[in-house]
Amino acid sequence: MKTASAGPEIERLISLLAKLPGLGPRSARRAALNLLGKKDALMRPLAEALADAADKIRACSECGNMDVSDPCTVCAAPNRLDAAICVVETVGDLWALERAGAFKGRYHVLGGVLSALDGVRPEDLNITKLVERSAREEVSEIVLALNATVDGQTTAHYLADRMAGCNVSITSLARGVPVGGELDYLDDGTLAAAFRSRSTV
Amino acid sequence: MKTASAGPEIERLISLLAKLPGLGPRSARRAALNLLGKKDALMRPLAEALADAADKIRACSECGNMDVSDPCTVCAAPNRLDAAICVVETVGDLWALERAGAFKGRYHVLGGVLSALDGVRPEDLNITKLVERSAREEVSEIVLALNATVDGQTTAHYLADRMAGCNVSITSLARGVPVGGELDYLDDGTLAAAFRSRSTV
Repeated sequence: MKTASAGPEIERLISLLAKLPGLGPRSARRAALNLLGKKDALMRPLAEALADAADKIRACSECGNMDVSDPCTVCAAPNRLDAAICVVETVGDLWALERAGAFKGRYHVLGGVLSALDGVRPEDLNITKLVERSAREEVSEIVLALNATVDGQTTAHYLADRMAGCNVSITSLARGVPVGGELDYLDDGTLAAAFRSRSTV
Repeated sequence: MKTASAGPEIERLISLLAKLPGLGPRSARRAALNLLGKKDALMRPLAEALADAADKIRACSECGNMDVSDPCTVCAAPNRLDAAICVVETVGDLWALERAGAFKGRYHVLGGVLSALDGVRPEDLNITKLVERSAREEVSEIVLALNATVDGQTTAHYLADRMAGCNVSITSLARGVPVGGELDYLDDGTLAAAFRSRSTV
């Protein structure tokens, strides 16, 4: 579809912007026009930031996090516990947990979850490195912080099996009522899990 | 707000992406991670396309359209009518009319509409050039294709006054039921306008 009545430069920019998650052809057009109206304030800085980030940011060879340094800031931080490793699916999940500030150990990013439908096999994920890390002497706990979906839980079971030989305790995030959640609107599975895991007040 | 657990390069990229219309801090984070996963397929090409477009694309000195050439493709096209000029608010409106393929004359982009609230005065808009163009001998019709909002219609009245001395007929887009529109859901103003402008079948 021809989207703009202008040269191929704008067409190309719009079609690339439309590939970003959250933007379609229409909003990409709007974004392109907005950018052209703020060339020095937004467009050129964004071009530089993109090129800069593309050149400098790499996956950490230790945990799979994205950072300018390798090992990444989290792996290199001296004030974090080496005893616990939190396993997450994506870098976005790692960021979410860091924003919550709930965990002060190290992370391990799998880069996805096992999925028969999408053809994701164990060797496609960053699992060998995880098993190697969990066998290290200083590691005593592996927290599986995977999404509470079928694929996420399948992966959690697989990982627990793979690390059964290592001398670590394997834990997973609690299931229950989310903060601010109303019981009436929660699904049966969550309510049943919250009931099973009830605690004394 | 610290959005990512990574270096300032990612923070900067996310904060710039969040300034695009249609993206907020959360979707900008998602877009940044998506980009970092497709460095060669999307991230570097997008950086190049942005820098390229920022350097090459300028506003046409004749009509205000955005293009790599000045005068723009529409102004330079030999097969378009010089007799009619369609006045639009933004370049996006020009593109929308071009996609509809309803008009084969020239365009004039105002760059906004008069607005007492936002402090937009006639001298802030591309109006002097429009009056100059409408006074040219070959021009016989000015189509005011402005939004059907209060500001758009105020601007249309102002432009009609300004061009009263020129020997041109000034027209505006029809008001009526949009294609696919259901009468039950239309507002009173649109229905009344559609009734007044009814035509024989």
